[in-house]
Amino acid sequence: MRGDGVTVQSSAPMPVIGGSTRLYAVLGHPVSQVRAPGMMNRLFAELASDAVLFPVLVAPGDLGEVVRGLQRIGNLDGLLVTIPHKVDVCRYADAVSEAATLAGSANALRREPDGSWTAENFDGAGFVRGLRAAGIDPAGRRVALVGAGGAGSAVAAALLTEGVAHLELCDRDEARLAEVAHRLAPRFPGRVSWSTAPRLEAADLAVNATPLGLRPADPLPFDVARLAPGAVVADIVMRPKETALLRAAAERGHPVHPGSPMLTSQLDLYRTFFRLGDARLPDARGHAFD
Amino acid sequence: MRGDGVTVQSSAPMPVIGGSTRLYAVLGHPVSQVRAPGMMNRLFAELASDAVLFPVLVAPGDLGEVVRGLQRIGNLDGLLVTIPHKVDVCRYADAVSEAATLAGSANALRREPDGSWTAENFDGAGFVRGLRAAGIDPAGRRVALVGAGGAGSAVAAALLTEGVAHLELCDRDEARLAEVAHRLAPRFPGRVSWSTAPRLEAADLAVNATPLGLRPADPLPFDVARLAPGAVVADIVMRPKETALLRAAAERGHPVHPGSPMLTSQLDLYRTFFRLGDARLPDARGHAFD
Repeated sequence: MRGDGVTVQSSAPMPVIGGSTRLYAVLGHPVSQVRAPGMMNRLFAELASDAVLFPVLVAPGDLGEVVRGLQRIGNLDGLLVTIPHKVDVCRYADAVSEAATLAGSANALRREPDGSWTAENFDGAGFVRGLRAAGIDPAGRRVALVGAGGAGSAVAAALLTEGVAHLELCDRDEARLAEVAHRLAPRFPGRVSWSTAPRLEAADLAVNATPLGLRPADPLPFDVARLAPGAVVADIVMRPKETALLRAAAERGHPVHPGSPMLTSQLDLYRTFFRLGDARLPDARGHAFD
Repeated sequence: MRGDGVTVQSSAPMPVIGGSTRLYAVLGHPVSQVRAPGMMNRLFAELASDAVLFPVLVAPGDLGEVVRGLQRIGNLDGLLVTIPHKVDVCRYADAVSEAATLAGSANALRREPDGSWTAENFDGAGFVRGLRAAGIDPAGRRVALVGAGGAGSAVAAALLTEGVAHLELCDRDEARLAEVAHRLAPRFPGRVSWSTAPRLEAADLAVNATPLGLRPADPLPFDVARLAPGAVVADIVMRPKETALLRAAAERGHPVHPGSPMLTSQLDLYRTFFRLGDARLPDARGHAFD
């Protein structure tokens, strides 16, 4: 991925907006940090899709009014959603996917051909896809996942769906932990356990899904000295690219996996979800038979 | 103006959209024909403003929900409005300018620093500005204006505001004519008269503000044979550029004025209204004193 960061790239290919351009928005508060406009608009340009994605700054109290207004726009086809709206936005969907239901949150909504709206969550699938692209198949592994917030529960649900042998979920917030665990455990019987302190010894994949590591002064989210030799350490923190956790793990000889692929791997998933590939097919076919 | 028409110009300078980009929308139904995205996005690029304008297709019954939703977006600074929403959109403004009040409609709304919304109508001012740029000063003239719809009433109000000696307003729809005339006459006493049939003989400027001329089979909006020699004939129909009316008038030796300048002349007015010139001044000043 190019365009990591908020710098304006005047040479980046961007959609040319006309009266027939289809619309997508990314909703957040704040929203200035989002990478979706750069990623998606480059994708639209590459696909020659007459579409554009723009950032929407929306305060939590205004989410309903803004989403309902956007959903009434005839040429608006989809929404991406970031902090702090991922949980609340599910209220404005007519259908919520299994991944979003298990995660308890959504990061994408699309308009269906019948005009209804479906909510999806690609955070977990993006994480798994990023792992696989790096040669790390989570299937059959024993995973310790630290952090049961929005991103953590999405990653937990995707790892279980993708066949990890066992998931040990850890969060200091006992109420939040219990809520996520009780959502996941019945769906994946015998494969989920949880505790308020990290249990790392049996893991062959340990994942940080807390925000710890964003700031230089943050403590490590867990103690790498307690990991089994050869256990993979993955972080969902994207900046810095090499977090203190990953540095400490690498120093002890563990394979490490950074945070960025979780986001960049979602681009293909968005493309499929928003049907960007097939959007132009009917026209192309029509021309072929003309 | 380049970019006349709906063709996508892949080489046109376009804004690069990031998380901090400010938003503008143009609302219409239909909206595919609008030229505002091309015009405004080129302007943003030229001004190096981090802003983008996108088209919003909104059905009449959804106008309130869409406008209220858009107004709640923290980084959305303005709306342009086209058919059929110019009258109804005034309901969603906290303040309506004199031009918009006289026209009974608005084509631009901006967010004020205090968060309130002001409605303006630049159709009339754009028309007058276009006339002046073509060397035709309406001040002191006797004008016959045919068509008292949204555009016609905006043009009528602007011509009176800009000092025409007399305005003869004509519309076949007696109720509509009376409503517009009764709005204008008290504000410009002794300078407005009206009738359901065009009175052209005394005019030194005759304006078509009906849609007649858009389609090849349309009858002429008025009979050019009845014009005084040397009277200027102006049309607000933009396509075709040379309408049947303008062709007939030119053939009889009348100076003619086409429809496009009414729109293109509004660009500078939008720029001022949306404070696009001064948006970057505080930063620039800060640097100068560093």
